[in-house]
Amino acid sequence: MADHVFDRAIALTPLAHGSYQGQTSPAYANMVGPYGGITAAQMLNAVLLHPQRLGDPVSFTVNFCAPVADGAFVLQARALRTNRSTQHWLVEMLQDGQAVASATAVTALRRPTWGVDDTPMPACPAPADCPVSDAEAPFEFAKRFELRSIVGDWPAVWDGRGDNSLTQVWLRDQPPRALDFASLASIADMFFPRIFLRRATLVPIGTVSMTVYFHASAEHLVQTGDGYLLGQSYAHAFRNGFFDQSSQLWNGAGVLLATSHQVVYYKQ
Amino acid sequence: MADHVFDRAIALTPLAHGSYQGQTSPAYANMVGPYGGITAAQMLNAVLLHPQRLGDPVSFTVNFCAPVADGAFVLQARALRTNRSTQHWLVEMLQDGQAVASATAVTALRRPTWGVDDTPMPACPAPADCPVSDAEAPFEFAKRFELRSIVGDWPAVWDGRGDNSLTQVWLRDQPPRALDFASLASIADMFFPRIFLRRATLVPIGTVSMTVYFHASAEHLVQTGDGYLLGQSYAHAFRNGFFDQSSQLWNGAGVLLATSHQVVYYKQ
Repeated sequence: MADHVFDRAIALTPLAHGSYQGQTSPAYANMVGPYGGITAAQMLNAVLLHPQRLGDPVSFTVNFCAPVADGAFVLQARALRTNRSTQHWLVEMLQDGQAVASATAVTALRRPTWGVDDTPMPACPAPADCPVSDAEAPFEFAKRFELRSIVGDWPAVWDGRGDNSLTQVWLRDQPPRALDFASLASIADMFFPRIFLRRATLVPIGTVSMTVYFHASAEHLVQTGDGYLLGQSYAHAFRNGFFDQSSQLWNGAGVLLATSHQVVYYKQ
Repeated sequence: MADHVFDRAIALTPLAHGSYQGQTSPAYANMVGPYGGITAAQMLNAVLLHPQRLGDPVSFTVNFCAPVADGAFVLQARALRTNRSTQHWLVEMLQDGQAVASATAVTALRRPTWGVDDTPMPACPAPADCPVSDAEAPFEFAKRFELRSIVGDWPAVWDGRGDNSLTQVWLRDQPPRALDFASLASIADMFFPRIFLRRATLVPIGTVSMTVYFHASAEHLVQTGDGYLLGQSYAHAFRNGFFDQSSQLWNGAGVLLATSHQVVYYKQ
């Protein structure tokens, strides 16, 4: 698995004092700069690799402060607080000494409790019965994912006639790769901007902040393996240059692995 | 308005270098320590008061790292990055030099654009037709809010028979106070833990991380004044000691003012 393009993209070299060096990956290039999901995965990886880490990710917020330039970056990860079973992290991504992204993460030792999924997986046709989508095909990073569209695919006609923001899609890494926390963080950003769908119009956009809540345990990730995830995403409001979108990711067995939310800048 | 209990609770005294001193408010006490929403509002206020602030809040994430002790705290606010129309903030709340909470915020100059609310306000009876709720009545902070229950009120019987996690409620400050960004951040935390409703069982809980996306402009806040907000909240998953809950807040005119998400620790 270390040879997988995703593992090469998020690889970090330890520096002193909880810092790491990494570099942007041409394989995950977006129109300008890297795909936000790979930046998120790189930042989470600074926590995952950190020798002081306690437990697995529960919550992760990344703020995209400025365009990430192609090339090297430094990640500074700091445990702000370590409790008995939870830990709070701050991560900064620096280029030329300037913050280009910041992140906070909560990790925890999770124990079995009463539990229930209150948002059941929507009834959907099987992946093999859904057409392979070329959504976001012009962008290099999109070749790193297999998407099988159910509803709300990348518009075929840009006629300004969109009427809702709901996408449902089967998706996984391309080539397939066993799911882990870092790739789940990346995939959480793999829903194209809701405004493209809602308006059937392309406008300049950029994600400003994304939060991922991990409901999956390490065992759920192992059970999921490299199988398809069912993803769902929709917006609540578009107004004065910013919109939000909320997403859910289930594995094929119907276990809700992660919920994610982001706010996105748009122009016009 | 400066005499309102909320304003006194979030009042901060400037120290050097973008730091502020504040203190917990007995008026917003929870079972142990302060109500999380007032902690969030205090932290956001360190950004709102900061002389370098650019624009209004768009996104705000607060991580509750450790119990906040009754008494004084220091807030350190730092602009990590200032762009032409957006700004990224880091705020730490310290007691005895230790982080008890951290927050990131994005502020922005917002400009009129195309827009639409994609999640319409649910059809609900008017506030006057909804019974005043004594949800969370045992806790001092709950007296600072007027709640008028529509569905999913604080369970009357704790018999373990809950079957869903949806609450809809009219709410506003008590006594009424004109809405602003700080009070909207506080109110976003004013939905009692979904697990109490879903299980009709009281278990130990604690919010770990909360994110608020502000869809409201300053003008929407003025239009809202001290009127009721319609709040809605529900969970997606409860598993292995953590659950999430997502909330929406509309004003009486049906404008979606904020969406909010949080992840909460629970025991048992």
